[in-house]
Amino acid sequence: MTVFHWPERVTVREVGLRDGLQSIARTLPTAQKLQWIQGAYEAGIREIEVGSFVPPKLLPQLADTAELVAFAQTLPGLVVSVLVPNLKGAERAMDSGADWMLLPLSASHAHSLANLRKAPDEVVAEIGAMVEARRARGSHIRIEVGMSTAFGCTIQGRVTVDEVLRLLQAVVALGVDRVGLADTVGYADPRQVGELFAKAREVAGDKLGCGHFHDTRGLGLTNVMAALQAGETRFDACLAGIGGCPHAPGASGNVATEDLAYLMASMGLHTGIDIGRLFALRAQVAQWLAGEGLHGSIAQAGLPKTLPTPEMTA
Amino acid sequence: MTVFHWPERVTVREVGLRDGLQSIARTLPTAQKLQWIQGAYEAGIREIEVGSFVPPKLLPQLADTAELVAFAQTLPGLVVSVLVPNLKGAERAMDSGADWMLLPLSASHAHSLANLRKAPDEVVAEIGAMVEARRARGSHIRIEVGMSTAFGCTIQGRVTVDEVLRLLQAVVALGVDRVGLADTVGYADPRQVGELFAKAREVAGDKLGCGHFHDTRGLGLTNVMAALQAGETRFDACLAGIGGCPHAPGASGNVATEDLAYLMASMGLHTGIDIGRLFALRAQVAQWLAGEGLHGSIAQAGLPKTLPTPEMTA
Repeated sequence: MTVFHWPERVTVREVGLRDGLQSIARTLPTAQKLQWIQGAYEAGIREIEVGSFVPPKLLPQLADTAELVAFAQTLPGLVVSVLVPNLKGAERAMDSGADWMLLPLSASHAHSLANLRKAPDEVVAEIGAMVEARRARGSHIRIEVGMSTAFGCTIQGRVTVDEVLRLLQAVVALGVDRVGLADTVGYADPRQVGELFAKAREVAGDKLGCGHFHDTRGLGLTNVMAALQAGETRFDACLAGIGGCPHAPGASGNVATEDLAYLMASMGLHTGIDIGRLFALRAQVAQWLAGEGLHGSIAQAGLPKTLPTPEMTA
Repeated sequence: MTVFHWPERVTVREVGLRDGLQSIARTLPTAQKLQWIQGAYEAGIREIEVGSFVPPKLLPQLADTAELVAFAQTLPGLVVSVLVPNLKGAERAMDSGADWMLLPLSASHAHSLANLRKAPDEVVAEIGAMVEARRARGSHIRIEVGMSTAFGCTIQGRVTVDEVLRLLQAVVALGVDRVGLADTVGYADPRQVGELFAKAREVAGDKLGCGHFHDTRGLGLTNVMAALQAGETRFDACLAGIGGCPHAPGASGNVATEDLAYLMASMGLHTGIDIGRLFALRAQVAQWLAGEGLHGSIAQAGLPKTLPTPEMTA
């Protein structure tokens, strides 16, 4: 029997405003997004990906990202991040005053071509250009590379561990501040997650700093657990598990924020999140997104009588 | 980094015909239950809890249990179990020719009174009487005690580890063949599960042989993983996650059989189950139970391209 050393704190980054809303056809009005950010902040969340600097033509749902960054930066202690797909987006991110830019890099060649119209090595080259642009401007924005399809790909199928590690090493060498591993399509299993996080830590060291899991096939939280046991303490999540996958009707998207917060609270690990307030926020978002499929378990069942109390008042 | 030694095989016991159907008001016709047993068998399941010898007045849904046992015993290699709440039920189980009788013992005093109208120590005494009745008859039926509410109780709240271990020790001393730990109400968390399974194994040794988890709050599979990592290799599950909890509308019941089978297959662990056949069975049961809430993720999303192949042809 191995005695596992649990971390005291786990960071939950809310990505529903980006990963969730970009998968939903309707555009949520800016005023509601601002309320969402405010509500998440009041529930104790201190890291939020508020949007993406992609061309508004491609994702009109996220066209108000600069405005969201400006508001989010008024909330004390909130770490504000934005997704950035290319150099032009990086310039806009630096203009916006965001704390972090999150750069996607697909480990799957096929997914990379489909998503960014570039091969992975071309994306690595562009990430190099973004690092250089930051230096040239003297910007303090921090750079995280999210390795998407790190556990498999709906187009290509398998993705090799060697390819993931090769690409990780390349971007670490470029001087990015953090890397994360993402199960973009819900293919990961906990054994694979534990093994890949361990190997990725050998390559990236302390720069490995995020797990991004979808719950498409019901293994989202088992994968979070596996990464946690491999030393990861930051996880992405979407309120109400919004997002989903266009190829799997009825299937959920990212791990639900409230389920992730409950998982950690149930084990006595601190996230600073008040789950009751997340339930209230979920109910509000459910009204705004009436008709969209919401996911997640704990909001339906309610908290148990036995939940450790410190978490609830964190 | 700890290298975990994964087991080669994991046993999935289908309990939907008992734990699932007893929570559903309608009575499934015997002919459909026989098809369910046959279908589960053809999908590769080799352990099925087919029903319960409780008074038919209390659970008319399960009144045909003797007939189900008789049919199930015609399927080569199938291990047939029945739930038995008292000495009278044990006599009927021995009459029926079942391989195993599963005896519930609540670790929660309040749940024990509500469920069996006896305190836990009175239930232990009755288990002793059942062991003695088996000896007196020279029966070869095997006895498993399922420790319900081992991780908490909706009525009482917390259940102490000491009480669980004390009761486990008592029934092991009586000469039962196996004990299991059950999260009857969906209160368990993976940290607690790992710790309690480790401690229970110190008390029960190799007699500890089943994990029974509900997915009410979304942690069902994380708890399975925790027990697996603590050495457990047998798990209960209900096809389509049927069952639920009367106190939590919309919340799911037991871990879904197809999700559990997928979790194991995704990690390359053999269960002997053909998940595609489980999907077909699920579709059939969904018709029979039209209007009831079904649960589970993998049947909605479909299997990934990357699933290890040996499992699929096991």
